[in-house]
Amino acid sequence: MLQELFTPSVQHALEIVGIFVFAISGALLAVRKNFDVFGMAVLAEVTALGGGLLRDLIIGAVPPAAFTDLGYFVTPLVATALVFFLHPHVERIQVAVNVFDAAGLGLFCVTGTTKAYEYGLGLTSSATLGLATAVGGGVLRDVLANEVPSLLRWDRDLYAVPAIVGATMVVVCIRFEALNPFTSGLAVVTAFVLRLLAMRFHWRAPRAWNRRSEMSE
Amino acid sequence: MLQELFTPSVQHALEIVGIFVFAISGALLAVRKNFDVFGMAVLAEVTALGGGLLRDLIIGAVPPAAFTDLGYFVTPLVATALVFFLHPHVERIQVAVNVFDAAGLGLFCVTGTTKAYEYGLGLTSSATLGLATAVGGGVLRDVLANEVPSLLRWDRDLYAVPAIVGATMVVVCIRFEALNPFTSGLAVVTAFVLRLLAMRFHWRAPRAWNRRSEMSE
Amino acid sequence: MLQELFTPSVQHALEIVGIFVFAISGALLAVRKNFDVFGMAVLAEVTALGGGLLRDLIIGAVPPAAFTDLGYFVTPLVATALVFFLHPHVERIQVAVNVFDAAGLGLFCVTGTTKAYEYGLGLTSSATLGLATAVGGGVLRDVLANEVPSLLRWDRDLYAVPAIVGATMVVVCIRFEALNPFTSGLAVVTAFVLRLLAMRFHWRAPRAWNRRSEMSE
Repeated sequence: MLQELFTPSVQHALEIVGIFVFAISGALLAVRKNFDVFGMAVLAEVTALGGGLLRDLIIGAVPPAAFTDLGYFVTPLVATALVFFLHPHVERIQVAVNVFDAAGLGLFCVTGTTKAYEYGLGLTSSATLGLATAVGGGVLRDVLANEVPSLLRWDRDLYAVPAIVGATMVVVCIRFEALNPFTSGLAVVTAFVLRLLAMRFHWRAPRAWNRRSEMSE
Repeated sequence: MLQELFTPSVQHALEIVGIFVFAISGALLAVRKNFDVFGMAVLAEVTALGGGLLRDLIIGAVPPAAFTDLGYFVTPLVATALVFFLHPHVERIQVAVNVFDAAGLGLFCVTGTTKAYEYGLGLTSSATLGLATAVGGGVLRDVLANEVPSLLRWDRDLYAVPAIVGATMVVVCIRFEALNPFTSGLAVVTAFVLRLLAMRFHWRAPRAWNRRSEMSE
Repeated sequence: MLQELFTPSVQHALEIVGIFVFAISGALLAVRKNFDVFGMAVLAEVTALGGGLLRDLIIGAVPPAAFTDLGYFVTPLVATALVFFLHPHVERIQVAVNVFDAAGLGLFCVTGTTKAYEYGLGLTSSATLGLATAVGGGVLRDVLANEVPSLLRWDRDLYAVPAIVGATMVVVCIRFEALNPFTSGLAVVTAFVLRLLAMRFHWRAPRAWNRRSEMSE
């Protein structure tokens, strides 16, 4: 068992923040897709908890944390209520939502990697599950909304790469027995800042070479 | 362990009925989507068993009931064969299908909640999983058919709310140690009747406030 | 425990080949959908490992093989790199890809069925999971790419039937205690050849009777 990255109460508070901002993004997509209030709640819950749920099923941590911590379940409902009553204002503060979402991305890629390693997975698998924790909820959100996952689209700013970098930093630290609150925090901040820079400068990933333009849709 | 809600044979018969009608709805959607007979069978199986499968994975009941009870597996195939040969007639009796589907909804939200509680989940989580059991199959059906899940759409009659009410009645009964065949049956009937009323009077859930009309799609 | 179907190293090599060709099909779809290189990698991994992952979650084999064998994880990345740099050539050899994909289908329906039986499932359930292992990755690939799964479409050559035949041969052999490397290999080859014939002669499955043409989309 690794030592706790942060004090439990700090870590729990950070995770609630991450869940909250992911839930906001789910509820906002539901509004854009014209769903009713229950569709908003479902999409908020799935976006916020889906990545961690997937990770917990794969590592065999059942019942998943999403079903044992009431705060994890209630937080997306609060986010849904906020979006329901205030969504024009929430849309207006999209920049703030994006910043929080980047914070959630950074946090979840680190905590997801750490939890997978604690359950006995190898370093590469742990980093993969850290990535899945960070981006899985957003993919499920887009699948349920019947859209191409924005994670996969070339015309969106880099999203996976910051999480990959953060998760990789964690497993490198584990490998060299250097994982502690400071290095973990550094991984969170690195992923967070990389995502902010990707949004600021519209960094994008390349598509396959020689792709003929008529293949685009 | 809670006492059995009903005698095992009665409960099993009720579940087979629920599985059958959910499978009918899956096979009918496959016909509308122009799938072949194997697509019909896949969609029937997923619709009928998907919700319970999801619940069993989350509570750690592996292998899931869908893979240990041959009747659960064969019933959707029977439904597929019926729709394959008779589907214009099955479509004509859409009202009957809707009534049975409402019965399946009522039954599964109650049995799903009870099973989750028996596996040690809290009351809120158990009710959530009861809801997931009741509606999960339909969501998977719509995702596989590449449609927006009808559960999420505002222009469909209330579907989640009756299941939420039924699941909530069960956990309230558990909380006050009043869960017995009578109260369980009452929860099933309440969810069933609420769904029938929602269809009869086209009850719908509200969408987010101030939604501008040009957002609609 | 059944005896090993093949020597471990032969079986592992065959599985790597199956994973590789499934990954190629995922990466090629990503190119057609205009995804970036990370989208290609995600779709390659999901296509190659999704079916086995689903099977392992259902039979309770956690962490799934996809997360314990580094070769399973790296192979789709190699396939992604190949498609990234060479995809016009890969597209040109689509026939070869289809042949390898048929080989993967035959192999995975047999190994999936065998593994499920080893974990204690019944014969029917084992065959079902063998089918799910063989076709599950392709379904997940199409869902993530926001397309109707080609498995379900009537206008595609038979894909499920060869896998069903192969899985059924395995459980019949198990039932009569005749499962050995020879009969297993025969099941693989039968499924493989059936799939090749289905592509060569455009075998298709029937749709529901009396389907009116105006239902088509």
